[in-house]
Amino acid sequence: VSVSLIGAGPGDPGLFTMRGAELLGRAEVVIYDRLIGHELLDLAPPGAELINVGKSPGTSRPQAEINAQLVEHGRAGRRVVRLKGGDPFVFGRGGEEAEALRNAGVDYEVVPGVSSAFAAPAAAGIPVTHRGMATSVTVVTGHVGDQSAPGGVDWYSLGRAGGTLVILMGMSERARIASELIGSGRDAGTPVAVVHWGTTPHQQVVRSTLGGLASVELPAPSAIVVGPVAALDLGPAPASGGAGSS
Amino acid sequence: VSVSLIGAGPGDPGLFTMRGAELLGRAEVVIYDRLIGHELLDLAPPGAELINVGKSPGTSRPQAEINAQLVEHGRAGRRVVRLKGGDPFVFGRGGEEAEALRNAGVDYEVVPGVSSAFAAPAAAGIPVTHRGMATSVTVVTGHVGDQSAPGGVDWYSLGRAGGTLVILMGMSERARIASELIGSGRDAGTPVAVVHWGTTPHQQVVRSTLGGLASVELPAPSAIVVGPVAALDLGPAPASGGAGSS
Repeated sequence: VSVSLIGAGPGDPGLFTMRGAELLGRAEVVIYDRLIGHELLDLAPPGAELINVGKSPGTSRPQAEINAQLVEHGRAGRRVVRLKGGDPFVFGRGGEEAEALRNAGVDYEVVPGVSSAFAAPAAAGIPVTHRGMATSVTVVTGHVGDQSAPGGVDWYSLGRAGGTLVILMGMSERARIASELIGSGRDAGTPVAVVHWGTTPHQQVVRSTLGGLASVELPAPSAIVVGPVAALDLGPAPASGGAGSS
Repeated sequence: VSVSLIGAGPGDPGLFTMRGAELLGRAEVVIYDRLIGHELLDLAPPGAELINVGKSPGTSRPQAEINAQLVEHGRAGRRVVRLKGGDPFVFGRGGEEAEALRNAGVDYEVVPGVSSAFAAPAAAGIPVTHRGMATSVTVVTGHVGDQSAPGGVDWYSLGRAGGTLVILMGMSERARIASELIGSGRDAGTPVAVVHWGTTPHQQVVRSTLGGLASVELPAPSAIVVGPVAALDLGPAPASGGAGSS
């Protein structure tokens, strides 16, 4: 295998997988995103070439360029690690990178990671499912267009379906999302938690309700948790260091 | 911290977290479920007490008894690892165990794991989200009652909402679930993949459609993936060893 698409996990380096660490430890090229725990890069061997393809929002390389880099280094027979935040196959565009490698005939493998969609709520003490509260959890991106657009999100039906919602990349659209969910029949008093940089030392958690979500001010990256479980506080998580923190 | 609720991941021991391995390596008591990768138990120190609380379906200990064991060993000040398949806070009843520990005043922490809800599809080459195919993924349990029961699943709205569905513990109810999803408007030709023991050497994958799901014969544990992404085959995953397997 030449290229390994590896989930870096949600931010806490302790949540990286053993297989990921093993592969990173013998990488020759590491192509990484902005949202990974940078302590992880210390696991790469001293001589490895480190390539940041997502320095900051707005300056990220286009996906096609990243795909081309993966193919180029893979074709050169180098041991390439593509380190992606969370899990490569959950809103990570890892599927597109896998397709590019397959089409180019480059061997690759996929190493799942701990998804921040579940780990960020956990770090705030929130189980995304809980007996008597939620029998399903939907992870959805907030930064695509409305339901009428192709590939858009049908917030009305998601709202109707009940269960826990975890909205990633949704802060800029939070007022509209809250309004659509309330319009679907979700109570404005439905608990909401917003988890910024979950599992990391920068973690911040704000508790609110659907009706109050528009007023929550936290920058990206933040996960928005909607549903009765968002009122739970069953922490601590590893990175927070003790009961009752966050 | 006395008790660590740790996600063991989907089965492949390489998908265990580094933090989980560290804690397991100095555990005095390990309380584990049936569905964990048993190679993981080798990470426990030689003298550790290993307690299997879920030997086989039907003989699992009641949750209250497991909670009581966690509290008892935790109160005794022993370093307890509670090893749960997948992620403790995603259909793992970890929230109930955390509540029991909190109510008893026992220190604990939660260490997320790689969820089989995402890793089993990945091991079959399926990204649960993919550009132009799915902007959301819903993970749902198939073994609760119908939508009219309290805490039940509203299959109709989930079907309407589009996006990828990953149904855990749903094989015994697969005919009813398929019928409800088709009734909600999902096309009978919607791709379906059933992934048995994903990420392990026992992995089996059967591809079908919603209309054909009732005829798929695979035993538990199996994850059912419903949606256009279920037709993708962007493997391999680590455990499968090479391109085009599964």
